[in-house]
Amino acid sequence: MGGSGSSTTLLPLLFLARLSGLLVAGLVLFWALAFNTSFLPHSATASNDYFVYSVLHPLFMVIGFILISGEAILVHRWFPGSTSLKKSVHLCLQGVALASGIFGIWTKFHGERGIVGNFYSLHSWMGLLCMSLFGVQWMMGFMSFWHRGVVRRVRRKVLAWDVFVGLYTYGLAVATAETGLLEKVTLLQTKRNLCKRCMESIVVNGLGLALVLLSGIVILAAISPKYHHHHQALKTKLLYSSSDRDTKEHFSST
Amino acid sequence: MGGSGSSTTLLPLLFLARLSGLLVAGLVLFWALAFNTSFLPHSATASNDYFVYSVLHPLFMVIGFILISGEAILVHRWFPGSTSLKKSVHLCLQGVALASGIFGIWTKFHGERGIVGNFYSLHSWMGLLCMSLFGVQWMMGFMSFWHRGVVRRVRRKVLAWDVFVGLYTYGLAVATAETGLLEKVTLLQTKRNLCKRCMESIVVNGLGLALVLLSGIVILAAISPKYHHHHQALKTKLLYSSSDRDTKEHFSST
Repeated sequence: MGGSGSSTTLLPLLFLARLSGLLVAGLVLFWALAFNTSFLPHSATASNDYFVYSVLHPLFMVIGFILISGEAILVHRWFPGSTSLKKSVHLCLQGVALASGIFGIWTKFHGERGIVGNFYSLHSWMGLLCMSLFGVQWMMGFMSFWHRGVVRRVRRKVLAWDVFVGLYTYGLAVATAETGLLEKVTLLQTKRNLCKRCMESIVVNGLGLALVLLSGIVILAAISPKYHHHHQALKTKLLYSSSDRDTKEHFSST
Repeated sequence: MGGSGSSTTLLPLLFLARLSGLLVAGLVLFWALAFNTSFLPHSATASNDYFVYSVLHPLFMVIGFILISGEAILVHRWFPGSTSLKKSVHLCLQGVALASGIFGIWTKFHGERGIVGNFYSLHSWMGLLCMSLFGVQWMMGFMSFWHRGVVRRVRRKVLAWDVFVGLYTYGLAVATAETGLLEKVTLLQTKRNLCKRCMESIVVNGLGLALVLLSGIVILAAISPKYHHHHQALKTKLLYSSSDRDTKEHFSST
């Protein structure tokens, strides 16, 4: 992907991924702490727990689920040590992200509406789909990668699917977060007359754009070749293979 | 990506992409036609044009922008003929999608608030970013691919970037559409007391999930190898290149 040499080509991408991750974490924390009245219950009858769980939901979904699963994706690009060590760190981080995601969804069940009452919006439908995909994939990864007896060819296919479904689920998680941010701000603007250009709206919109930036950098870092001169195949990861003629044209100088 | 032979491996994916595309088109048309009162102006003073433009916005953004740009992505995977013919069809379709997108955004300027008044929500910020990326990339693609004199190595790099940025922009367009659907339904639910489990909410949420499905299939079709036995490099598109040892392990049987 336009790299110009050794393994150092990935360093700027990894740095940018952490920088945008810090920006995302900072913005979601700033939103939760500085504008915490936005998370107070709508009705006076709601319990006080609602406030705490309502603040915890974005924190656990954004920092616990999205940022940690992003770090898990990046483990393969920088973590030193053996392949099996990398795999175990990857699986552990994904496990922490999964636990955070499940807890983050569970926090919504303490609100005014209970479990079924929450699953009406597109945000909740997308979230349920995303968490199911993530959970199934984590189980599959856990079983596939630790099963030493599986034929190498099967493991290679599973790996390709793991990478595709993993990045797709990560993108879906970010899209779900965007719908959640928009739902929250739209409800605040209509129900509590939050002005459309005040600080809180701008902070939440900025958080949405920072998540868009983060996801792009993480996915690019995940698919970029680590060693430019190492293996020609790695340079061609995202090239089209539209026809014999195309392919010959692309690879004629390799 | 788990294909088992010749070029026929792509056919089921292309078929599924069109099937989910038809589902998306059907749902957005059904929403616009059967529930058109949802698009009526909020205030009595708004002009009658508002209604027409308000209905046209989702139609042009979903069918005109997302579905046609998805078809443009898939052109490289099935369209017969020479590379330059494929490229021209790809660029033409992207041009139609860009025009639809620009018209789709323009329709919002006929509402109650004018141009600047519309750019307050996360949906509008994401849409602006997405359309800018798409426009810049279309211009770059137009200039790069039709410039015959450019060195082959530069063109290969540009192609890899074109594919990455293209698929990223496509994903961003789908995420932006999700936020738009959620914003519309949330406003209807709070301002007009649309019930949370009635037909219209379910149709719009179904449209959101159909878009999630469509984007996954289109991206998978775009990165899947067309010819399984053609070039070993193509099989490795989405494999990690985490270290020498990893790479040797992945490719040891190739």
